[in-house]
Amino acid sequence: MDVEIVAFDVFGTLVDWHTSMTAALAEVGARAGIDADWPDVASAWRARYRPALDRVVAGDLPFRSLDELHRMMLDEMAAEGPLRALSDTDREELVRGWHRLRPWPDTVPGLTKLRERHILTPLSNGGMGLLTRLARAAGLPFDCILSAELAGTYKPDPRVYRLVPRYLDVPPDRVLMVACHPDDLEAAAREGLRTGYIPRPREWGPGGTAPPPPDHVDVAAGDLLSLADLI
Amino acid sequence: MDVEIVAFDVFGTLVDWHTSMTAALAEVGARAGIDADWPDVASAWRARYRPALDRVVAGDLPFRSLDELHRMMLDEMAAEGPLRALSDTDREELVRGWHRLRPWPDTVPGLTKLRERHILTPLSNGGMGLLTRLARAAGLPFDCILSAELAGTYKPDPRVYRLVPRYLDVPPDRVLMVACHPDDLEAAAREGLRTGYIPRPREWGPGGTAPPPPDHVDVAAGDLLSLADLI
Repeated sequence: MDVEIVAFDVFGTLVDWHTSMTAALAEVGARAGIDADWPDVASAWRARYRPALDRVVAGDLPFRSLDELHRMMLDEMAAEGPLRALSDTDREELVRGWHRLRPWPDTVPGLTKLRERHILTPLSNGGMGLLTRLARAAGLPFDCILSAELAGTYKPDPRVYRLVPRYLDVPPDRVLMVACHPDDLEAAAREGLRTGYIPRPREWGPGGTAPPPPDHVDVAAGDLLSLADLI
Repeated sequence: MDVEIVAFDVFGTLVDWHTSMTAALAEVGARAGIDADWPDVASAWRARYRPALDRVVAGDLPFRSLDELHRMMLDEMAAEGPLRALSDTDREELVRGWHRLRPWPDTVPGLTKLRERHILTPLSNGGMGLLTRLARAAGLPFDCILSAELAGTYKPDPRVYRLVPRYLDVPPDRVLMVACHPDDLEAAAREGLRTGYIPRPREWGPGGTAPPPPDHVDVAAGDLLSLADLI
């Protein structure tokens, strides 16, 4: 496959937010004396993500960074129930937990292999600062950082996908967008990017299933190491 | 020094553009059958840089990428004289030569040492694509890439320096701007960034001298390894 740039979705595709945020919530929650089903709380926090971002994409909410949106969602969840006991400091620490998510086992070796012949960048709804710190903490070997923040909107707004050809000086079909989310790949394809699907059945915790890949995906692989072999 | 981010000027400060572009010009020129004083041609090309960028900063020329400006300057130089013999392909190859500049001997070990405790980014007039490819080719271990292109202008426009606090979520005084050019550091200081000076007497070739550091520089060191010891 004749691509120069590989762009990656991050949350779910490269990092295991559910396990990482469950651990962060359990730690901060225990310190605050809260008893809760922490895997469920992690899922509930993340479930507020898409509706909040959709409001920004639709223009109902002015653009603000994902850190600010994470805080807003957490405050909404903590308006009642046991999470009310989280202090301001606890909440800031939890928002920063999204900067320190563990990679899946194939992520670092897969990226390392892909980077031998391709330029690698995230293309994520995480902010520039979040993605820079996350890449550093998780050891993700990117060549640069591209965030939806640079477009002042969020995926699947087409302006986010156009960042890659625009800033890396390539035609869209020299870019492969890799994600575990079909809607992300469909939006990338509409902007002329090539698309690569990998399944992440454990994104929302144990016992989950991965959605099927989109119909017209350019490449599908079981993990990033297999993807590196295919392109 | 209590800084989290170290931002670097690139051309001259981290890479030896004069030696690298002299070699690129000599190679392409020889193939085109041109005899010229290649170190002088490299210096003459670079001497057109500041006036061209100043026209963009002043609003006399709409923003365009440094690749486009490099091509414009080269075409101006080749309007008469021996460089007229350079083909379109030769000129494109030479413009891409600015993506593959050699680091100074202390650059990679100095950055590697600084990166142990700091987030590293370029803050350069080179475009996002240029800087990404240059960092990769020269093995510069940045955590992200920030280019003046993201501000749609060039240094010393204050909007360029504001990119670092804005996108990396820190107050300006948690950023150290490192450069061998006093005017770059003075402009950074006006935006509240801390400043670090290193001399690069060979920036314009052998026999040059480095300008003295600005009066109010926060740290001055002989090279990047010494700088890493000081902060």
